[in-house]
Amino acid sequence: MPRILRVAAAQTGPIQKADSRERTLARLIALLERAAADGARLVVFPELAFTTFFPRWYFADEAELLPYFERAMPNPAVQPLFDRARALGVGFYVGYAELTPDGHRFNSAVLVAPDGAIVGKYRKVHLPGSVEPRPGQRYQQLEKRYFEYGDLGFPAFRAPASLAGGVLGMLICNDRRWPEGWRVLGLQGVELVCVGYNSAAYDPNGGDSEDAGLRTFHSQLAAQANAYMNATWAVAVAKAGNEDGSGLIGGSCIVDPNGRIVAETRTLDDEVVVADCDLDLCRQGKEKMFNFAAHRRPQWYGPITGQVGVVEPAEQGRTVG
Amino acid sequence: MPRILRVAAAQTGPIQKADSRERTLARLIALLERAAADGARLVVFPELAFTTFFPRWYFADEAELLPYFERAMPNPAVQPLFDRARALGVGFYVGYAELTPDGHRFNSAVLVAPDGAIVGKYRKVHLPGSVEPRPGQRYQQLEKRYFEYGDLGFPAFRAPASLAGGVLGMLICNDRRWPEGWRVLGLQGVELVCVGYNSAAYDPNGGDSEDAGLRTFHSQLAAQANAYMNATWAVAVAKAGNEDGSGLIGGSCIVDPNGRIVAETRTLDDEVVVADCDLDLCRQGKEKMFNFAAHRRPQWYGPITGQVGVVEPAEQGRTVG
Repeated sequence: MPRILRVAAAQTGPIQKADSRERTLARLIALLERAAADGARLVVFPELAFTTFFPRWYFADEAELLPYFERAMPNPAVQPLFDRARALGVGFYVGYAELTPDGHRFNSAVLVAPDGAIVGKYRKVHLPGSVEPRPGQRYQQLEKRYFEYGDLGFPAFRAPASLAGGVLGMLICNDRRWPEGWRVLGLQGVELVCVGYNSAAYDPNGGDSEDAGLRTFHSQLAAQANAYMNATWAVAVAKAGNEDGSGLIGGSCIVDPNGRIVAETRTLDDEVVVADCDLDLCRQGKEKMFNFAAHRRPQWYGPITGQVGVVEPAEQGRTVG
Repeated sequence: MPRILRVAAAQTGPIQKADSRERTLARLIALLERAAADGARLVVFPELAFTTFFPRWYFADEAELLPYFERAMPNPAVQPLFDRARALGVGFYVGYAELTPDGHRFNSAVLVAPDGAIVGKYRKVHLPGSVEPRPGQRYQQLEKRYFEYGDLGFPAFRAPASLAGGVLGMLICNDRRWPEGWRVLGLQGVELVCVGYNSAAYDPNGGDSEDAGLRTFHSQLAAQANAYMNATWAVAVAKAGNEDGSGLIGGSCIVDPNGRIVAETRTLDDEVVVADCDLDLCRQGKEKMFNFAAHRRPQWYGPITGQVGVVEPAEQGRTVG
């Protein structure tokens, strides 16, 4: 029996700092309903989907920061999304800022089954940005200040039959550029990886020359190649557009296990695209080209876990042929 | 001072089993001369460049196998290529079948400086194929039979000033699909990775449905994304075309540190394309997005070195949100 899971990439347009929580939640529910009407059984929302990308702002006062965080998932403010998904029989991935009961903060995502049960949680490992605000700059990237590094590793989850019984994994934003996270998921036999992101379309402070076209290319290239090299589907979903003067790329896409984009968004606004993901399409790659048990040679991968940064080779040494 | 290295991808068309060594060497020298005339200072040749892709044939008798191997590098049969390169002041990467004095066989490559010195050697780690011939099939893939796994790891080399003093790395064919090898090179600050390949354009025995277009896409996608994710140039070079009834893809390309193809071949025959590789273009990626020291989290990468094959998650366990 083919294991086909119709998946939706539910991209959102910008969420401004001044937008109310209620207004944003209503937009997410509208996207969910559109995806369900298109027959999707799993809807992938962006990273930090309930609010603006607040790490661009420096809050000297923690009282300004904490309202962006969720103290439980679900909680009364987001419950209408969970209720609507359950009523429609649709599962979803959603990113949010997590505040634990004992005061730890993470950039997190949950995977929710169509019956409302939480299948798994992930906390972002590859936090970009800096701890200290960059002086004199209007826009910051303070993820390393506002969040702790994820402490759950890269777990994959066996989804229920309502999600085709697939092996599902989660990454968040910058994680998608790091092959290590994908590989740890691949080593668990992952068949579909959900990734939400908020990625700058340009340097809002004018610091480098990468434009939105190049950055969108980077985003898709990373998702495509890592999907291919792990023989998995991938669904990468943006929060896009202009948030309070800072641009975010779109380019949300659904990628097959050959690394081909099978559906992608065309706007920088709220938009849904869907694709039928046949999880059995992963099998050829996993059994042949990327049969890890047959072909991997971990004894030569030591530096990947044994060192963090670069160690350059010594000044020109010559070996004997 | 910009560190610009003009590099040539010197793709070869097919080399038939019946072709003489002399004829093949003359073709390689002609490509070298064309590249030098185009101003290249480094010429990248394919994997197993001196012969047909012989692992497609099952040789019951070792006496038939050994003539494909080089007992030293250089040796009298290939010396004219080394001599011509030195006379032209051009360095090169070339793949060959290596037979060591004590009888070990490897799928190897050397990097040769413009003055003829061997800068480094690499032995292919990710051998595809099988040890035992597949019964009843005309074409085999017996790399795991004819070669031992590479035992040198993934060393990067500081090249001489005649090659812009770059940090250079080598991979061979199937290695380019494995992000682990690229990452070990990236962790040495690699600025240009040379990859020669012989990759089937289709299953010559009719066993799967991947056509030449898809396989060429896979090849380029892997080179592009791994170049981007390690902020390095990459030069991937095919032996292409129809070898004794078995097709090989072309699609040789030079890729910049943003993962963009800046030059690529258009034929399945002997063909040279060149590009100016500014090694300092690697710097932005290495200092920002892929600043490994700032952003990698090896404590969560353990399975990459700790296990070889897939370990799937248990039947649906649910975690508490």
